[in-house]
Amino acid sequence: MIYNRGTKEASVLLFKQVYDYLLERIQRGEWKEGEKLPSIRALSAELHVHRLTVFKAYQLLKKNSKVYVKDKQGYYVRSTVSESVHPRQDPIIRGFVQGSSLSEIRDVKADYTFSIALLDPNLLPNHYFSEYVKKVFDLYPKVLGTYSTIQGDEELREALSHYFTEKHRFYLSSDELLVTSGSQEAIDLIARVIVKPRDIVLLERPTYSPAIDVFTRQGARILPVEIHRQGYDLEEVERLMKQYKPRLFYLNPTFHNPTGYTVPAEQRKKLVELAQKYRCLLIEDDPYRDIYFDKEPPLPMFAYDTSGYVIYVRSFSKYVAPGLGIAVVACRPAVMKELLRAKSLSDSGTPLLNQKIFLRYFFSERLQQHLAKLRIALAVRKEIMEQELTDTGCSWESPSGGFNLWVRLPGHVHLETLLEASTASSITFVPGCICDPLKEYRSWIRISYSFLNEQQIREGMSRFKGLFRQNVAASALAFMLPNRDNKA
Amino acid sequence: MIYNRGTKEASVLLFKQVYDYLLERIQRGEWKEGEKLPSIRALSAELHVHRLTVFKAYQLLKKNSKVYVKDKQGYYVRSTVSESVHPRQDPIIRGFVQGSSLSEIRDVKADYTFSIALLDPNLLPNHYFSEYVKKVFDLYPKVLGTYSTIQGDEELREALSHYFTEKHRFYLSSDELLVTSGSQEAIDLIARVIVKPRDIVLLERPTYSPAIDVFTRQGARILPVEIHRQGYDLEEVERLMKQYKPRLFYLNPTFHNPTGYTVPAEQRKKLVELAQKYRCLLIEDDPYRDIYFDKEPPLPMFAYDTSGYVIYVRSFSKYVAPGLGIAVVACRPAVMKELLRAKSLSDSGTPLLNQKIFLRYFFSERLQQHLAKLRIALAVRKEIMEQELTDTGCSWESPSGGFNLWVRLPGHVHLETLLEASTASSITFVPGCICDPLKEYRSWIRISYSFLNEQQIREGMSRFKGLFRQNVAASALAFMLPNRDNKA
Repeated sequence: MIYNRGTKEASVLLFKQVYDYLLERIQRGEWKEGEKLPSIRALSAELHVHRLTVFKAYQLLKKNSKVYVKDKQGYYVRSTVSESVHPRQDPIIRGFVQGSSLSEIRDVKADYTFSIALLDPNLLPNHYFSEYVKKVFDLYPKVLGTYSTIQGDEELREALSHYFTEKHRFYLSSDELLVTSGSQEAIDLIARVIVKPRDIVLLERPTYSPAIDVFTRQGARILPVEIHRQGYDLEEVERLMKQYKPRLFYLNPTFHNPTGYTVPAEQRKKLVELAQKYRCLLIEDDPYRDIYFDKEPPLPMFAYDTSGYVIYVRSFSKYVAPGLGIAVVACRPAVMKELLRAKSLSDSGTPLLNQKIFLRYFFSERLQQHLAKLRIALAVRKEIMEQELTDTGCSWESPSGGFNLWVRLPGHVHLETLLEASTASSITFVPGCICDPLKEYRSWIRISYSFLNEQQIREGMSRFKGLFRQNVAASALAFMLPNRDNKA
Repeated sequence: MIYNRGTKEASVLLFKQVYDYLLERIQRGEWKEGEKLPSIRALSAELHVHRLTVFKAYQLLKKNSKVYVKDKQGYYVRSTVSESVHPRQDPIIRGFVQGSSLSEIRDVKADYTFSIALLDPNLLPNHYFSEYVKKVFDLYPKVLGTYSTIQGDEELREALSHYFTEKHRFYLSSDELLVTSGSQEAIDLIARVIVKPRDIVLLERPTYSPAIDVFTRQGARILPVEIHRQGYDLEEVERLMKQYKPRLFYLNPTFHNPTGYTVPAEQRKKLVELAQKYRCLLIEDDPYRDIYFDKEPPLPMFAYDTSGYVIYVRSFSKYVAPGLGIAVVACRPAVMKELLRAKSLSDSGTPLLNQKIFLRYFFSERLQQHLAKLRIALAVRKEIMEQELTDTGCSWESPSGGFNLWVRLPGHVHLETLLEASTASSITFVPGCICDPLKEYRSWIRISYSFLNEQQIREGMSRFKGLFRQNVAASALAFMLPNRDNKA
């Protein structure tokens, strides 16, 4: 319902929402232990709520020992380590590892899973796969008896280094490639090797949600960089690099997840220059490159890098064969040395069988034919989804590649209420706040057209649209923070 | 050569060795930053060397800014963070992740790789594997198009929970099992979820070397627990648990790597009681259980655990199919919850193809027949290796299972010299110090009989023995520390 600041009930709700909102920001580490919180006056102005409401919120935070009062000077963040992180009293392990919010959503069972940015298994040439596997066993009869090297199968790395050199103008040797079990492992390894607690990390806003989890888990302090249809505000990026000396900038510049934006070539060149100038590594995550609907995207940033500031992560799982779990990291020897060390402790190398199957299939004639069909099939599904969205009051940028639509909800739709209603109607989507390092974006959602077929998309979307019509209140937070979302 | 303390040359060598020895202990964190080192007097007594030698060593440490002198009171460990861990000046990443020392040795190419504790691929039923794979594709035509869940394939976890319940008297549901890509990933995940910097961790001495690397990398402080033919000194274990409140005890009680010892049933029961009493988790790593030569080993400790203090790690890669990389973790829900979070950030679940192949093969009639043959083949290879070792002055405990011999070198053999000579003769083995949390054990080595065939073992061992006869000097360190090794 609409909040009527006049009524008692509304103010009760408001103070609870301010409480949740402050708690979230504290837990996000926006204010560190012992750090002073904004004054009641300042906060009531920022949130457009009555001071009494803020006061009540602070009182509750104090009551729940999230904050403490220091000689009447104000409210300070209380240490939470002792109570939450490390209880000796019982065998229950309270980990300090955040899980992947996205994987939790992914595991929700539903009829219409628009939350899943994976390829529909029916779009893969499944009946051919067993042929390739058979071939692998003929060629390498002992493949199941043999461990891969930590760095990955030499034959595969050789083939990939030629591929990258020809196709993307990377000039590298097979020693500058590391095979990982999917891009998630690659990003995790990179974070573990490069990021130390309290390091500054730049993330796109919005971004690939598990990246937020991985870098936060490493204890990094996150600075968001807005991404727009035209790319980034490079002056802003330079200001951040200059002022905060970030350790790295994790980006997904090609058919960006979730927005679908592609950063233009000239910006890529400039970004590499900035990275070199301010000694900030660029982690270029590039899983959707081959899924273009119109023309091929610009070259990866790695192609412009001459002094080792770009680490390129290329996942093939997304569209070649999710069940194989193969990705590759391209980087220069200094970084590779550290990645190999980390990999040697996290597994004994990606399974050889998977690498050999991938090798045989990826460089086959058939994959290229398959990709052509795949692009058409996905473009069709995207159009169907977009047709369904017209006249809903939603707004979005039609992507020229990738798996996702990044959709702005009509003003009257309240995210939390929509989530509940959708789950009840067996529909899942990704709330924008999960993709937002600041956990805001409550009027945006990500819906994927890659996993369900035309028929399912039609049915699911028309059911989904029905939920919009129901009279759902505007998010109280969006109301309290009127200007936040307009930036996106 | 033999060190003659009289000669100048010898004393030069000695002071350099004292330097290396002190540096190693500093890097091992035995003395923390700002902590005072032993006095020259004390150290010269401990090492049986002239004070001048210690003084020279300290001077060199000071020169290389490893230590500093505080108002003439003595030598203190200097902070190394600024210089080594985190250089902003250039893109070279100096990771704070230690690599796996073992994997480096494993990657050394040689004709006779006694360092490799992996199964000889020729001992696997390779020509049958493709059948199982074919079957998997017939049963699950879309297996390559499908991601596994984070926790692992439900069908596989169901089958394994029945298997564990029947075979090991584990009473658990499939929700208490997590499928990982090999045991290395399992141990890494457990360390990341449970161990915080400066936590105390108990490790067997000697132990599985990558475990030292993993827990050290987490910033744990390691306490060694000697393992003997009869198991552990439980009074000592209780003393350590009582005094230091360790977070966990990582152990490999069945055909222990590297010693081959098996902890008797009554000690297993008592260890679980101690774990509960002192709230210390037991990480039971159990990769060799099925590789017994005589009778089946006692039940895993997990079977005795009633309150969730044991985490059981069972790798099947070692002897079922290394190329698949399948292991499973059994633990109670509180721990599982955290492991799932960590796994969701480190990959998207172990590849489904590998899980399904493993499922079909592991529970097949053929695997059981295969295992019977495997035990005989390995027992034969072990005996050949032991025959070759007789009359060499080496001493060892004949293991009743597993892949390794833990061999004590004759007194006159100097480890470093033997390593050089072996490499020159294209022979590799694992130096005992790598398996020692204290990095000592310079008169012990691990040699594996699992990877080479009878013929290769005979050839390699006779070549290896030849190196003993050469007149190699006793290790200067062993000489300086006469009593260290006798403990083992």
